[in-house]
Amino acid sequence: YSNTRGKATALLLVAQAIFLVLFGLFVDYDVSAGPRNSSLSTHSTLAHYYPMYQDVHVMMVIGFGFLMTFLKRHGFGSVGFNFLLTCFVIQWSILVNDFSFTYRLTITIWLTECSYSLLEADFAVATVLISFGAVLGVVSPVQLIMMATIEVVCYNISIYVGIVQFQATDIGGSMFIHAFGAYFGLAVARVLYKKSQTNSRKEGSEYHSDIFAMIGTLFLWLYWPSFNAAPGNGTERHRAVINTVLSLAACTVVTFALSAVTDKKNKLDMVHIQNATLAGGVAMGASADLLVQPFGALLIGSSAAVVSTLGFRYLQPLLQRTIKLHDTCGVHNLHGMPGVLGAVISAIIAAVANKAAYQDSYHELFKNTLRTPGQNGGFQIAALVVVLAIAISTGTITGLLLKLQVWDNLTAVELFEDEVFWEV
Amino acid sequence: YSNTRGKATALLLVAQAIFLVLFGLFVDYDVSAGPRNSSLSTHSTLAHYYPMYQDVHVMMVIGFGFLMTFLKRHGFGSVGFNFLLTCFVIQWSILVNDFSFTYRLTITIWLTECSYSLLEADFAVATVLISFGAVLGVVSPVQLIMMATIEVVCYNISIYVGIVQFQATDIGGSMFIHAFGAYFGLAVARVLYKKSQTNSRKEGSEYHSDIFAMIGTLFLWLYWPSFNAAPGNGTERHRAVINTVLSLAACTVVTFALSAVTDKKNKLDMVHIQNATLAGGVAMGASADLLVQPFGALLIGSSAAVVSTLGFRYLQPLLQRTIKLHDTCGVHNLHGMPGVLGAVISAIIAAVANKAAYQDSYHELFKNTLRTPGQNGGFQIAALVVVLAIAISTGTITGLLLKLQVWDNLTAVELFEDEVFWEV
Amino acid sequence: YSNTRGKATALLLVAQAIFLVLFGLFVDYDVSAGPRNSSLSTHSTLAHYYPMYQDVHVMMVIGFGFLMTFLKRHGFGSVGFNFLLTCFVIQWSILVNDFSFTYRLTITIWLTECSYSLLEADFAVATVLISFGAVLGVVSPVQLIMMATIEVVCYNISIYVGIVQFQATDIGGSMFIHAFGAYFGLAVARVLYKKSQTNSRKEGSEYHSDIFAMIGTLFLWLYWPSFNAAPGNGTERHRAVINTVLSLAACTVVTFALSAVTDKKNKLDMVHIQNATLAGGVAMGASADLLVQPFGALLIGSSAAVVSTLGFRYLQPLLQRTIKLHDTCGVHNLHGMPGVLGAVISAIIAAVANKAAYQDSYHELFKNTLRTPGQNGGFQIAALVVVLAIAISTGTITGLLLKLQVWDNLTAVELFEDEVFWEV
Repeated sequence: YSNTRGKATALLLVAQAIFLVLFGLFVDYDVSAGPRNSSLSTHSTLAHYYPMYQDVHVMMVIGFGFLMTFLKRHGFGSVGFNFLLTCFVIQWSILVNDFSFTYRLTITIWLTECSYSLLEADFAVATVLISFGAVLGVVSPVQLIMMATIEVVCYNISIYVGIVQFQATDIGGSMFIHAFGAYFGLAVARVLYKKSQTNSRKEGSEYHSDIFAMIGTLFLWLYWPSFNAAPGNGTERHRAVINTVLSLAACTVVTFALSAVTDKKNKLDMVHIQNATLAGGVAMGASADLLVQPFGALLIGSSAAVVSTLGFRYLQPLLQRTIKLHDTCGVHNLHGMPGVLGAVISAIIAAVANKAAYQDSYHELFKNTLRTPGQNGGFQIAALVVVLAIAISTGTITGLLLKLQVWDNLTAVELFEDEVFWEV
Repeated sequence: YSNTRGKATALLLVAQAIFLVLFGLFVDYDVSAGPRNSSLSTHSTLAHYYPMYQDVHVMMVIGFGFLMTFLKRHGFGSVGFNFLLTCFVIQWSILVNDFSFTYRLTITIWLTECSYSLLEADFAVATVLISFGAVLGVVSPVQLIMMATIEVVCYNISIYVGIVQFQATDIGGSMFIHAFGAYFGLAVARVLYKKSQTNSRKEGSEYHSDIFAMIGTLFLWLYWPSFNAAPGNGTERHRAVINTVLSLAACTVVTFALSAVTDKKNKLDMVHIQNATLAGGVAMGASADLLVQPFGALLIGSSAAVVSTLGFRYLQPLLQRTIKLHDTCGVHNLHGMPGVLGAVISAIIAAVANKAAYQDSYHELFKNTLRTPGQNGGFQIAALVVVLAIAISTGTITGLLLKLQVWDNLTAVELFEDEVFWEV
Repeated sequence: YSNTRGKATALLLVAQAIFLVLFGLFVDYDVSAGPRNSSLSTHSTLAHYYPMYQDVHVMMVIGFGFLMTFLKRHGFGSVGFNFLLTCFVIQWSILVNDFSFTYRLTITIWLTECSYSLLEADFAVATVLISFGAVLGVVSPVQLIMMATIEVVCYNISIYVGIVQFQATDIGGSMFIHAFGAYFGLAVARVLYKKSQTNSRKEGSEYHSDIFAMIGTLFLWLYWPSFNAAPGNGTERHRAVINTVLSLAACTVVTFALSAVTDKKNKLDMVHIQNATLAGGVAMGASADLLVQPFGALLIGSSAAVVSTLGFRYLQPLLQRTIKLHDTCGVHNLHGMPGVLGAVISAIIAAVANKAAYQDSYHELFKNTLRTPGQNGGFQIAALVVVLAIAISTGTITGLLLKLQVWDNLTAVELFEDEVFWEV
């Protein structure tokens, strides 16, 4: 029986105790949340970030959580473990997101150069929840917590190389959040693969579980513009909102079109409507604040829908048959390929960027003042390669670790089933 | 069999291609979302509009979408086609909302004199979704897309006459959104009426579908103050929030009172709680930013509850029996009559407005500086008449077009049934 | 048969008529929502409060409403009567929240010294909804309306003594909202107790009702930082957000740990995940804007999880057996004990407060300039004692009143059952 008494509890309590100690030693409020000092004006900063932060927060626990409730006998585990992972990673990533322990960390609600924050924590949460989707229903809570603990570290390494060293641009995380989370999770899933996963009768939806899942889809769709725009400033922030709204709208229309026509009875598939409609948000991420123009946003969203819907329809079953890749939520189609697409698009936009057209914001967006646009495009691709390399390699190692038979590993009959871990 | 292969797909793909071309030719970012220029300060504008815009956005896809899931075998179609229509109309209405193609359109998140916007697009979406409610479960996706395409144009004609020419005031769209959407949809529904609609056993709710519908109701109720206030400015905007909160609160209390007492076993009817509780938002719309006083807001909400609840209980079955008007969601009771009520109230408030009491905002609200208050009241009524005339006439024509047997029209057994268009 | 014709309707209509008259006599818009006057700048105030107000509003009708839908045959009553109570109390508490009728009331969206507001109204709503949780499924709508009417008055008395006279600090309402609402409701529940309540087969959840309840849980969890921060200003407001996010994250992790380990099969209990995860918000309330430090917030959340989870697991059944306290939603574990814990923590933090550390905000938080920190701590405890004394005494009296057999009182078979008051 998988659910051995107390292992998850012990792990969580030890981790929470460690968080307490580390926060006590290293973490303080940022000046904007510290003692009031009338010589500082910090009030407008909260107003600037808070509404978008809350939107992103909703995406984490309602969006991801309910999207995964499509499984007919795994609703508690989907929404519940999603909630647990969010709360675990918020704390862990506040600590890990800043590499240097030479100075005290400070918590604010936003991103600044050296004080990472609640918003940044939610981005780490998103990465982990994407990986969770790849192994939904086939791992135990103990395995999830182990995975999250490791993944947050690897996620930060990838950001260190790609953002700090390569100075790539990726406001919405097409590469560093979506592609990373997807390929890390897929590597874990591949290593953990067992034949019994692929013909479980429990792996499927029922009528009402599909409607619950739509709650998740729609809140993700609605608040995605905040996800892609929250770290931005000035007119770029407004542009990121507009681009993301347009991309998602076009993506949804094209997804409906392709879902029907690729079915032999011409019927729509809820899996596509729940997932592929969101690919426009993923693919728009890396260039949301760039001058792609409104028609460019529509084109990006439409392309993402094609990649994602066809991925769900044709590629996913193929990968499962051929390379034994079982991907419960199809994160390869929603986050993996659209993330790569977003990275490639951002490289093209960066390479053709006209400095004059960007006016005062060119070096806000492309920070390295010594590079040509073409070089900037090259570094976007280099960052993508690094992200994929780190995600797949560290994901594989994590998977091997999780395969050890000491983490409440599930047996065949326990897959996709709430009764193992929940009183039902 | 209705769902002929590929018709909806072809229509959507052609439309999306046309949107791409037209956006490429005509649409650009507004200066507030364009290249950053340190001589312009646009940052606060996003902060000003974005939270209310997001609330309105939630009303469209969660609010309308889930409200319609009350049908026991049409949950996918309700929330799914609502989602598709939203995404289709966002794009189409950005193009149509501005009549003149002589200059390039610009997209911003807000309303200004000559650059229509994402917020305005959502108002067009709302109008179409109201009409959708009148024909829910009795039309195919192809018919819905055709209807939406035509309706957005007619909606703009009505705004051109009522707002641009008559200079009527209607911040929350009692007339131009709610009454227009309802009577347009009802005209379509009347023309499409078939006897088989009225005794389908599938047209009904079940226990859990009624709870899903409450998700829609409550998000509509919660964010309605943003809907009525978003286009406003200054103290009028705050007043619109307060008036709408009060009107909705009173409306809900009176709806509970009347729902019980009009039932012969004195039981509450979920249809009323899901719908009539919102009539206070509709009726408050046209005068939300006027000085109706707090008790006036309570009175307007209470009156709307009376009209709407009695409409659901007595008028709707009567209209179905006598003039063969089948109205799936009862939009006549929630949007039609309360919209007319709101228009009449706004005419009265405008006619008795005391210029001095409004201080600096009188001509912000009543733009024509040559008119007396009485004349302003008259033009409110004139605008209402125009809205109803355009809605009913163009809705009827649209219905006749949709009756042609080329749009995947549904047969009797296919009504209110997801299996026709969805893999279940 | 309990549902006697028209009693609830009559009560609601009379109340609504009284609200109309009293609003007409006494209530006006605040200057920030009145006629625009270019010499006043009020625009930013709406921006400052509105997003957090809307979050709090969502907590009331979606959060509380859906949290209570866990009962398998009481979904309509849970979400429906929660909605009715919200709308009733918004109006009633706007009137009652200001004691003095010597000047006209003014409505704004925020809290100021003498004009109470929509936000304050929602705090009164929260208090009543907490009490509702204690008697969920065992009272009629008539009893609920009577209870709410009385409770709003008693709630204000407790605030008058604790906030106005004792000058206690409690930004998030640990004492005045959570502890008050819980102990008032528990006193009512104790008086109304009947043996038949404790072995009703209808008092339980089913698979999908537990997932509906998670919608409520998650929106409460997400928007709790707004609840605790909305009345704040300056850096304290930002700090309240950060503290509440951290407290809730730690609370959730510890709740998962303890829920599993206290079960003999080591399975998680949805009751704990739905409720005890929120105790961190309750316990953080009274010191959310104080300098508890990030690790302090984690510690408070962790402690709240211990108290709440063990309360659900061990204390609640014990109290039911021994003192016949039937608490349908376990409000004692979620609001009662964590509220008391929050009060005690705030007393400690106040007593050890270092004036210098708070810089310019010390007397914003601790208003009485004549007291020592130790005395401030003492007054926090004094306020808690007053809150408990008023809640329990007035709750008991209210319970005795509601026991009179004239309020559609429920019989044994009608408990936890929608069919009594709803067409199903």
